[in-house]
Amino acid sequence: MEEDKSYMKNVKNPTIKKILEKYKEIALLGKVNALLGWDLNVNLPMQGGAYRSEESAYVTELITNKWLDSEFRTLIEKANCENDLTLEEKAIVRNLNVATKFYYKVPKELIIENEKVTSGAFIDWRTAKEENNFKKFQPHLTKIVEIDKQIAQYLGYKNNPYDALLDLYEPELTAAECSRLFNGVKRELVPFIKKITKSKGYNDNVKFINRQMHYPKADQEKILNYTIEKMGFDFSRGRVDISAHPFTTTLGTNDIRTTTFYSEIDFRDSFTSSIHETGHALYELGINPEFASTPLEGGVSLGMHEGMSRFWENMVGKNPHFLRFMTPVFKSIYDKQLAGIDAEGLIKTFDMVKPSLIRIYADEVTYSLHIILRFEMENDIINGKIAVKDAPEAWADKAKKLLGVEPKTDSEGVLQDVHWAYGNFGYFPSYAMGNLYGAQILSVMQKQVKVDQELAQGNLQPIKNWLDNNLHQYGSLYFPTELIKKITGKPLDYTYFTKYIIKKYSEIYDLTSS
Amino acid sequence: MEEDKSYMKNVKNPTIKKILEKYKEIALLGKVNALLGWDLNVNLPMQGGAYRSEESAYVTELITNKWLDSEFRTLIEKANCENDLTLEEKAIVRNLNVATKFYYKVPKELIIENEKVTSGAFIDWRTAKEENNFKKFQPHLTKIVEIDKQIAQYLGYKNNPYDALLDLYEPELTAAECSRLFNGVKRELVPFIKKITKSKGYNDNVKFINRQMHYPKADQEKILNYTIEKMGFDFSRGRVDISAHPFTTTLGTNDIRTTTFYSEIDFRDSFTSSIHETGHALYELGINPEFASTPLEGGVSLGMHEGMSRFWENMVGKNPHFLRFMTPVFKSIYDKQLAGIDAEGLIKTFDMVKPSLIRIYADEVTYSLHIILRFEMENDIINGKIAVKDAPEAWADKAKKLLGVEPKTDSEGVLQDVHWAYGNFGYFPSYAMGNLYGAQILSVMQKQVKVDQELAQGNLQPIKNWLDNNLHQYGSLYFPTELIKKITGKPLDYTYFTKYIIKKYSEIYDLTSS
Repeated sequence: MEEDKSYMKNVKNPTIKKILEKYKEIALLGKVNALLGWDLNVNLPMQGGAYRSEESAYVTELITNKWLDSEFRTLIEKANCENDLTLEEKAIVRNLNVATKFYYKVPKELIIENEKVTSGAFIDWRTAKEENNFKKFQPHLTKIVEIDKQIAQYLGYKNNPYDALLDLYEPELTAAECSRLFNGVKRELVPFIKKITKSKGYNDNVKFINRQMHYPKADQEKILNYTIEKMGFDFSRGRVDISAHPFTTTLGTNDIRTTTFYSEIDFRDSFTSSIHETGHALYELGINPEFASTPLEGGVSLGMHEGMSRFWENMVGKNPHFLRFMTPVFKSIYDKQLAGIDAEGLIKTFDMVKPSLIRIYADEVTYSLHIILRFEMENDIINGKIAVKDAPEAWADKAKKLLGVEPKTDSEGVLQDVHWAYGNFGYFPSYAMGNLYGAQILSVMQKQVKVDQELAQGNLQPIKNWLDNNLHQYGSLYFPTELIKKITGKPLDYTYFTKYIIKKYSEIYDLTSS
Repeated sequence: MEEDKSYMKNVKNPTIKKILEKYKEIALLGKVNALLGWDLNVNLPMQGGAYRSEESAYVTELITNKWLDSEFRTLIEKANCENDLTLEEKAIVRNLNVATKFYYKVPKELIIENEKVTSGAFIDWRTAKEENNFKKFQPHLTKIVEIDKQIAQYLGYKNNPYDALLDLYEPELTAAECSRLFNGVKRELVPFIKKITKSKGYNDNVKFINRQMHYPKADQEKILNYTIEKMGFDFSRGRVDISAHPFTTTLGTNDIRTTTFYSEIDFRDSFTSSIHETGHALYELGINPEFASTPLEGGVSLGMHEGMSRFWENMVGKNPHFLRFMTPVFKSIYDKQLAGIDAEGLIKTFDMVKPSLIRIYADEVTYSLHIILRFEMENDIINGKIAVKDAPEAWADKAKKLLGVEPKTDSEGVLQDVHWAYGNFGYFPSYAMGNLYGAQILSVMQKQVKVDQELAQGNLQPIKNWLDNNLHQYGSLYFPTELIKKITGKPLDYTYFTKYIIKKYSEIYDLTSS
């Protein structure tokens, strides 16, 4: 057996000690549920779905009951009144307050109602999207918005009910803060994108993409293993498997699993998406093992996690220096498929910019604008400034303004994402927060690590080590706002991101002289 | 969602209804634990072991608590007094009595003591076996025997304390019944084996085995998939994976998973062991789906399960007619490796008989004698006729008498199996019971299905269908003793097995005239 590295044994405060004992069961059941989910996506035989749903629902119920356990609740209340807590103990209490807020403040009936409405909504959303028929989804969305407004009331907020929802996904984030950051991004990037689309090099990439070619799975696997080993992924503490939609899941401190998907007509997707998922995995693998099975375990927020995964995907994986390093590797495996394409051609295909309608296919430059569109929609819908019935039109208007493209159907507009059908108002902004975190962190990293020079030589380890020391290790000890200040010395500032984008893409699209 | 096929909805008796509701949670948690175990053996990253142990221990504790729940216990007591129960309801109560006997009759302190002793014993057994040092294991074995004797007292028995232990693994089995059956087997097979070892054809097989050859994993996989599809294994309801030791596990009515292991120097092991495991899987897959998540789920006993797996392995997979059918399949894939070997040569390598020391490598003819040896040892140890310190010598004596070979070391004698280190006295006989069940069932099947003729044509489906109809479907509805009578019209009789063995191997070793 391994040595007990858990933080628990060092805790002196008796209330916190009791809390940690109880929390450990929640953590264990959470990991069991994660295995049920991983296996569902990776292994489950076709007919095994119904029973797996029952199992997951049952384990979820066990977890919910542990959160709602009155003794546990009393302990947390008591802990909130304790003085002389250590930094770690304070963070434990804070994280428990966040985790229990939804359970303790929202009436059980409303949670059940919410589950009922969203599970019905999901089914009709799917058909509505297939049939391009917003009317079918509209009554569900109306109910969901009503429920989310009520939830916001129960959760409480200072200025804006949407703040209560944002806070569920990214602690302390407010609509005002989003506006401040996102307006800056808009101001810088909307005109910059126009500059790109009018440039001489725009659409150059089409010369290099040949979707008639075949990229065998086994070859992609070789490149993937080569790359994630360079990133420092430890196969004795994790796995990589295949699933329809790539994801990362934590089954234990020493058991972090990612998945990927191979498209045999394009080798780029599995390359960038596996770097993205490995970014998530490295965050989890780098956390102080003492935090295991305590409320300090895991990355601190969706936004910070996306910060890490998008950092690796875009700022490392699609960095032109790194792509130049990778070119001979790609060409040694895809010699025929990439005949006549050089490093600069590959950079253009990986870093192509093209305003488009669908978020999940968006490039690094336009991606944040897709999120800003959704943030503005959600904020206006929750505050009654956009009626649900008018959402399709509002979406189309914003797409035109922000991206310069207009959806011809609701399926490629307001119906494209599943998040609202799940009732997840407030989730989207965390994706864009990730971009901002990543760029600000990169700016500091560059002072200590010669990032571009290392990437030019294919050295990813110094980057991973820097992130381990400066970010990963802290797990959920610091809130995102504190963490970004601790790492960079400053509060979050959008200009790191916009400057990074403008510099990188001005070079790729040769806009420096224009 | 699938239609609810559970038997539960038809139950009218209110006590049974309540019991089934409670049992469902035990069933769900049991399947969750099975997934934890499957994943441990198939996927777990090297460093994930310690945490996985914690998870399994925690889920096991949840299950134990459900069994010990006083309300559940009262319901079972009440059910035992109910009249007018249906056949199914009676079987439910009977199975619950079996499942709870250990929990309700053995004091918790003794169960905990047993766990402590056996977990220490396992570690020292492993070293003792490596170092060929029985003395190291002896004090543990002494304690284990003492504890098992105490457990037998708490469980209760009529004539022989060993009966109480046998009954834990094979319901209703007694030492007297084992003696009756096993003495018959001994009487017939000990002289028959001598006849084989003196025959002209003995050791012929060595001509055909060339362990210098290489059998690529991918080729073995092709044959395996071909064979188990012929057996009727439904891949939409199960999987086949790789693990160090092949096993089968039920993760749900529609999720039965087997594993196999590929040795690249011999293609026979993965072939026969995957047929064996698929035999287990077909039993589980064939059970009436209405029994899912009730005490009627799963195969009825270890012995009956082993009956099915060994039936498929030996009576189908190693049937000379089937091997003749398979020969061109083997040769189409291993053309070079099997050059110069014909069907009769293959039969000699698959059905070779050779008395040896190690149970798990034993052939079909000598296997039962290995079990009989263990049965006699256990019966005598529990009844104080063999002292633990004398066990190595007693083992060696019996091996010589039964098999004609004598272990030179304790590692290939009394220390070879893990079962005693786990405290599992009473487990071994179920393996031999499987052989007897299988042969008696075959004798009836042959009256309705032209088994040899079908096998000669590679038709396995009629055999699977017959077993579905006559055995699999019943799950745990009938006890083994009832089931064998229901299927064959007679109580268990060892002569079906000995006659089957003598006929099959007299032909293979050309003993008919001698």
